[in-house]
Amino acid sequence: MDLSIKPYDLLDDAPGGSPAERGGDFKISLLDYGGGHLTEKQDASIDECKAYLDTPATITWFHVQGAIEAETLQRLGAVFNIHPLALEDITIAGHRPKAEIYDEQLFIILSRPVWRNDAVFVEQISLFYDENLIISFSNGVEDPFEPIRRRLRKQDDWLLNRQSDFLFYELVDLIIDEGFPLLEDLGARIETLEEKLLERPGKSTLNQLHAIKRDLLLLRRMTWPHREVVNFLMREDFPLMQDSTKVYLRDCYDHVVHIIELLEAYRDMTASMLDVYLSSVSNKLNENMRLLTVISTIFMPLTFIAGVYGMNFNPEASPWNMPELNWYYGYPFALLLMLGVILAMLIYFWRKKWL
Amino acid sequence: MDLSIKPYDLLDDAPGGSPAERGGDFKISLLDYGGGHLTEKQDASIDECKAYLDTPATITWFHVQGAIEAETLQRLGAVFNIHPLALEDITIAGHRPKAEIYDEQLFIILSRPVWRNDAVFVEQISLFYDENLIISFSNGVEDPFEPIRRRLRKQDDWLLNRQSDFLFYELVDLIIDEGFPLLEDLGARIETLEEKLLERPGKSTLNQLHAIKRDLLLLRRMTWPHREVVNFLMREDFPLMQDSTKVYLRDCYDHVVHIIELLEAYRDMTASMLDVYLSSVSNKLNENMRLLTVISTIFMPLTFIAGVYGMNFNPEASPWNMPELNWYYGYPFALLLMLGVILAMLIYFWRKKWL
Amino acid sequence: MDLSIKPYDLLDDAPGGSPAERGGDFKISLLDYGGGHLTEKQDASIDECKAYLDTPATITWFHVQGAIEAETLQRLGAVFNIHPLALEDITIAGHRPKAEIYDEQLFIILSRPVWRNDAVFVEQISLFYDENLIISFSNGVEDPFEPIRRRLRKQDDWLLNRQSDFLFYELVDLIIDEGFPLLEDLGARIETLEEKLLERPGKSTLNQLHAIKRDLLLLRRMTWPHREVVNFLMREDFPLMQDSTKVYLRDCYDHVVHIIELLEAYRDMTASMLDVYLSSVSNKLNENMRLLTVISTIFMPLTFIAGVYGMNFNPEASPWNMPELNWYYGYPFALLLMLGVILAMLIYFWRKKWL
Amino acid sequence: MDLSIKPYDLLDDAPGGSPAERGGDFKISLLDYGGGHLTEKQDASIDECKAYLDTPATITWFHVQGAIEAETLQRLGAVFNIHPLALEDITIAGHRPKAEIYDEQLFIILSRPVWRNDAVFVEQISLFYDENLIISFSNGVEDPFEPIRRRLRKQDDWLLNRQSDFLFYELVDLIIDEGFPLLEDLGARIETLEEKLLERPGKSTLNQLHAIKRDLLLLRRMTWPHREVVNFLMREDFPLMQDSTKVYLRDCYDHVVHIIELLEAYRDMTASMLDVYLSSVSNKLNENMRLLTVISTIFMPLTFIAGVYGMNFNPEASPWNMPELNWYYGYPFALLLMLGVILAMLIYFWRKKWL
Amino acid sequence: MDLSIKPYDLLDDAPGGSPAERGGDFKISLLDYGGGHLTEKQDASIDECKAYLDTPATITWFHVQGAIEAETLQRLGAVFNIHPLALEDITIAGHRPKAEIYDEQLFIILSRPVWRNDAVFVEQISLFYDENLIISFSNGVEDPFEPIRRRLRKQDDWLLNRQSDFLFYELVDLIIDEGFPLLEDLGARIETLEEKLLERPGKSTLNQLHAIKRDLLLLRRMTWPHREVVNFLMREDFPLMQDSTKVYLRDCYDHVVHIIELLEAYRDMTASMLDVYLSSVSNKLNENMRLLTVISTIFMPLTFIAGVYGMNFNPEASPWNMPELNWYYGYPFALLLMLGVILAMLIYFWRKKWL
Repeated sequence: MDLSIKPYDLLDDAPGGSPAERGGDFKISLLDYGGGHLTEKQDASIDECKAYLDTPATITWFHVQGAIEAETLQRLGAVFNIHPLALEDITIAGHRPKAEIYDEQLFIILSRPVWRNDAVFVEQISLFYDENLIISFSNGVEDPFEPIRRRLRKQDDWLLNRQSDFLFYELVDLIIDEGFPLLEDLGARIETLEEKLLERPGKSTLNQLHAIKRDLLLLRRMTWPHREVVNFLMREDFPLMQDSTKVYLRDCYDHVVHIIELLEAYRDMTASMLDVYLSSVSNKLNENMRLLTVISTIFMPLTFIAGVYGMNFNPEASPWNMPELNWYYGYPFALLLMLGVILAMLIYFWRKKWL
Repeated sequence: MDLSIKPYDLLDDAPGGSPAERGGDFKISLLDYGGGHLTEKQDASIDECKAYLDTPATITWFHVQGAIEAETLQRLGAVFNIHPLALEDITIAGHRPKAEIYDEQLFIILSRPVWRNDAVFVEQISLFYDENLIISFSNGVEDPFEPIRRRLRKQDDWLLNRQSDFLFYELVDLIIDEGFPLLEDLGARIETLEEKLLERPGKSTLNQLHAIKRDLLLLRRMTWPHREVVNFLMREDFPLMQDSTKVYLRDCYDHVVHIIELLEAYRDMTASMLDVYLSSVSNKLNENMRLLTVISTIFMPLTFIAGVYGMNFNPEASPWNMPELNWYYGYPFALLLMLGVILAMLIYFWRKKWL
Repeated sequence: MDLSIKPYDLLDDAPGGSPAERGGDFKISLLDYGGGHLTEKQDASIDECKAYLDTPATITWFHVQGAIEAETLQRLGAVFNIHPLALEDITIAGHRPKAEIYDEQLFIILSRPVWRNDAVFVEQISLFYDENLIISFSNGVEDPFEPIRRRLRKQDDWLLNRQSDFLFYELVDLIIDEGFPLLEDLGARIETLEEKLLERPGKSTLNQLHAIKRDLLLLRRMTWPHREVVNFLMREDFPLMQDSTKVYLRDCYDHVVHIIELLEAYRDMTASMLDVYLSSVSNKLNENMRLLTVISTIFMPLTFIAGVYGMNFNPEASPWNMPELNWYYGYPFALLLMLGVILAMLIYFWRKKWL
Repeated sequence: MDLSIKPYDLLDDAPGGSPAERGGDFKISLLDYGGGHLTEKQDASIDECKAYLDTPATITWFHVQGAIEAETLQRLGAVFNIHPLALEDITIAGHRPKAEIYDEQLFIILSRPVWRNDAVFVEQISLFYDENLIISFSNGVEDPFEPIRRRLRKQDDWLLNRQSDFLFYELVDLIIDEGFPLLEDLGARIETLEEKLLERPGKSTLNQLHAIKRDLLLLRRMTWPHREVVNFLMREDFPLMQDSTKVYLRDCYDHVVHIIELLEAYRDMTASMLDVYLSSVSNKLNENMRLLTVISTIFMPLTFIAGVYGMNFNPEASPWNMPELNWYYGYPFALLLMLGVILAMLIYFWRKKWL
Repeated sequence: MDLSIKPYDLLDDAPGGSPAERGGDFKISLLDYGGGHLTEKQDASIDECKAYLDTPATITWFHVQGAIEAETLQRLGAVFNIHPLALEDITIAGHRPKAEIYDEQLFIILSRPVWRNDAVFVEQISLFYDENLIISFSNGVEDPFEPIRRRLRKQDDWLLNRQSDFLFYELVDLIIDEGFPLLEDLGARIETLEEKLLERPGKSTLNQLHAIKRDLLLLRRMTWPHREVVNFLMREDFPLMQDSTKVYLRDCYDHVVHIIELLEAYRDMTASMLDVYLSSVSNKLNENMRLLTVISTIFMPLTFIAGVYGMNFNPEASPWNMPELNWYYGYPFALLLMLGVILAMLIYFWRKKWL
């Protein structure tokens, strides 16, 4: 095991772009509350954090946002007393969500899908939980936990009067519920794509279908393990969460299952869309074939008749040789014959319901 | 966890239309019976309900029909003593069916498929069960429990003499058995669609096939969890249901399994229908191709012969130059030659079984 | 729960036709044997049956054949002391096979596939077992248990000297083993259909394929649960079957598994047959296309050459204007040119292996 | 249960041909060894066998090869004390592999795939094991156990010094390992077929693909249950096999799993081959279409130009009427025009990369 | 069981080429360290190894690289005291990964995928673990463990101060993590192939797709069992690994699961690529058909008009016979008529969005 970052970021699950963009700017925010008081510090230094580590009476929450350099991470690991394997996991973008206990400290990884540049990316959220101490890491651009911080600032009693495990639940629930608007969006895209496929099948729609299929594959891979993670937290004998909080985690678990079922339903829908595309193209092919057949079937006999009367048999050599050419109504007769052929063909195709 | 309604109503599982239409008009009906008496009140106010809450000797059943406004729900929650998570679940249209115990009160969500405007929608039924107290919520337009109320009014001894858990079973069984006529209907639609696909494959049939596939996806997603719900109720150590009722729940469980198996069978059938469509279109394409080939193969040689005798080689320059033009029977010979080609072709295609 | 027959008979699993035909004529046969004596009564009345109910020393077997009217069923239920849920299950055609214990009485439902009018139908066999009392119901046209009755009449010691649970096993084994000849038949049909598909793909073969797929779907749905039923009977702690009989039930279980595996193999075979059909049609399309291409490629250049020599450029206006027309061998030259084109084309297509 | 052979031999798993060929000639070989001595008898009579039944000190192995007549089997059953259900299973060709204990005697059925007439057939091996007594049955043509008999004859210490359960393991291992060369062969056939499909898709390759798919289906059905059989033998609490032998059975189990995984991999490969076939045919269709389009697109304008100059407008009636006909270079101009059209088309198609 | 190498190397999982190339040159490296000292010997003889076998105080690691001849292997087996079944497994290329305990010695087989000649091959790594003794075998060309040896030489305290089970974990972890760069490579190939399929579908892309599918099948088959292997090592009651090492094995297990999930995602992606290919070919077919239809639809009427005015009706015989031929503007009129037809067609196709 060496701590250098390994080439895990397969399958495009990390937001692309410049290194800075990938992880957002580095920043530590700290929040300490309990017994009526609440201290908040944006952009805290590591040393400032140290002071709040030994406040067992109050709930302390450090949030580390953005891309972290290797040595900063080492220092954070030392200050916060983080297990080397957990440290390694934080740095690997695209890690599977998981829950682990290292030295009685709970460590979970969640994946947070975000919609950027018309594609789904997955940011990684790492959470540590210890009695009255929560440390969260996010490698994304924006701080996902701002809504909860806002509620705490507004003295939301619901949260303030509860213990640290409830705050932990709130963080997890927030990340998981962010899946719903994203899925709703994706559902709408699938629906418009479906109509497009039936109306105007083409290469660009095929490409879009492909992009959506990949997004679904990625989401599925990154959402399934949430099930195990939440299940791990709500296990009956799990000591770090209180029973009252486990009721809420059960609700959270229902949401995870709901999201997974929606993803499966979307997968089923997109799976059959390629067939729809194929049958749509087949249909077009058939229509074109029909047009070609109609045109050929009408003009071939006409051209043949014109060809016949263009033959050079000598009418003077015999009375049997193309006497029509010298008939008084020869030409009108030929034209009427052609018209007759056209009408017969049109009636035939009309009866076949091709026109 | 905040109580605002989240954008769950994905995948069209809620009946569309105006807000009023979505949930039907709000109405509370109450029923109180036992020891020979039976009181019924349609359109009861919340305050009227309160009076019946403390009647442990009689069975009390409140039914809340239609769309509920947020504050009304809060009041109902307070009066009926409902857990905030359950309250939240009631408001979310399209929630997965589930069974939960909150503070020793049983809470289950069922989904009730209804057929409206040629499509399947899913209404949500929420049921609370406590000793001698049942509270039911339905967000649909019609009251689904009217048949049971009618039986109680008619003094149906079967029901009246049993305890509250049997009434609860009857409510669950009613909702689940409503799946059968709907499935029968769907089965008939699948069968007619199948014939259509073989006879007249086209875009509209493809659209209908797609609509049915979605209905099946939705039904499947909303019916599978019923299995867990009924299983939860009939667990051997579950105290709220009596053993005599559990025998009936086992029957109810059989029905759920039967519905799920029918859905799977329908899915299998529709899955292969797209292939049928494709092969049907392929067949048509082939027939058109055949027609084109027959026409071309007959007229191309004819036109060629006419073209040959339309050449302007000078018969006077040499005896080898198109002497046919001056033959006595030149023209009839050419026409007979063409006829011969036609006959040969017809025989060829007749032998190939194309005609 | 109300006892009216619900619209379960979905997916055509009940034999169609007139009501009488559906279930065959109603008839009760009774058999009572043990200790050397054997009494048989065809067409017994319900009252005659009563007399044999209290003969604990001998084995009594009632068989109720054919369609039962609601009130007769109610009477039978009362006489034989059948649980209302079991009674309900008997009346529902197409019920899933299942095993249940009602008041210490064993009740199982089996499905018996029969081949009628070129399609598979499923008759329902219901069996009750109590110490020395067996009641069997069949809603089909013919009595399926005639072979066993014949063996008993012939004083088959194998059966006569064993206890009632062995007779029960024999009834179950008979019904399950009837699947083998039916599957053999189905297998033969699949094989002939397969050859047809490769030789003469068309709408009628597609229809036959579809019919077989449905038969398999139906058989699968009605055979899978047999596994659970037989498993239920051979459970180690199941008191109603003796250990010596359980050895035979294990053999019966092997047969059920064998049937299920054959069904799965058939499903796999038919699943790929639609693809075979599609590729067969594709092949035909390709051959037609080839024919069209050959014809066009040969005649287009010919017609073009004829067209050129049909142009009216005036040879007298210049020595450059179509001098060929006045050549001595002009016409033979043109014909040879055409022949050369034909030969070149034929060689080309012969090399491409199209001829 | 009646002992007549039931119509199990579905899905061609029994070697076809004449009855004699099906099962090979009937023959009993016996081997008795231990304590330094070794007796072998080919073609032993049943009575000769009896003498060796009561030799608990030495290991006795009877092998019954070939088709057995019903009465011979009954006699064997009586002599060797075989349970009637086991006797029945021996006679049924194509029985699922299984392991069973009848009266403390171990009975297992294995399937031995053989390659005959370009197709896979499955012979059935039945083995009985009792302390120091092994009875084996094979319904095939050749004796599969000859290699082991040879080793015993050569005084292979490895085998001779071990106990009877090790001999039993060697028999099982031999049958299972025979799957490897067969699979290797099948793998080679799949590979050549794959190349054929890409190069020359046609009906005969499709037929071969089908034959292989069936072979795989059959092998899969007959190999999966080996897993359970070997697992049964190596169960920790299974008394008939010693712990030292179980180590070897674990190795045997690994081989079974390896074979099953290879079969699954082959299935995956053949599953996608039909798609390859379809796309290969599609490709050909496309190429033919391209050829037709090229030919048509080149000759249609040419024929049109020739047609224009074949019109009979009277140049004498007006200077506007086809003055080209009387130009000095009229004909060369027309020919050059045509050449120009040809070149333009060729360049167009060359740019489209069609040539 | 005989020790000759069996024909396991099915499905090309062994690197091809000459025997020497297949396994690389034979070489034994030994490493002995602990208590501050470290001895290393490249190319050690078997006798040199013997001397280090009895050094319980220091950690001894033998690595056997390359193809081993049968008798050398027998000698190694005797010196290192290896169970015959383990010896057999080492010689079989392409064995499934597995973990086994032989006489309290841990034996595991891992598969190491390598990328050679544009295809994936699987080398086999066999590891024995005993208190302070590790023996590793690799049948590949290069020594995979060089990175760890380098770390030990550099006196990496992380490794040196830990016990032998941690070294064992490091070896396992190294092999498993080598899957990541290979998968990344494969992912990139899939992506480029996908674009090719959409742009230029053809036989060579189809072949590449096939090759990738096979690589995935092989990788899947050889990676799945790693799960069981690592799981075996981290079992709570497994005595040979310390608890502190099991924490690291849990991390290793996560990596195995991650690799398997990536493989499944790749499989899903390639599975749909054949459909993409088919639809891409269909698209091309449709475009060609369109081109043919446009050309035919434009030139057929033109040729027909030219044909009409090429008829030889005698204008002198009647004023109705083709008076156009003698009109002053007859020819320009005909040309304009043709131009009109062309324009009408172009507008028609432009409206149909074909141009």
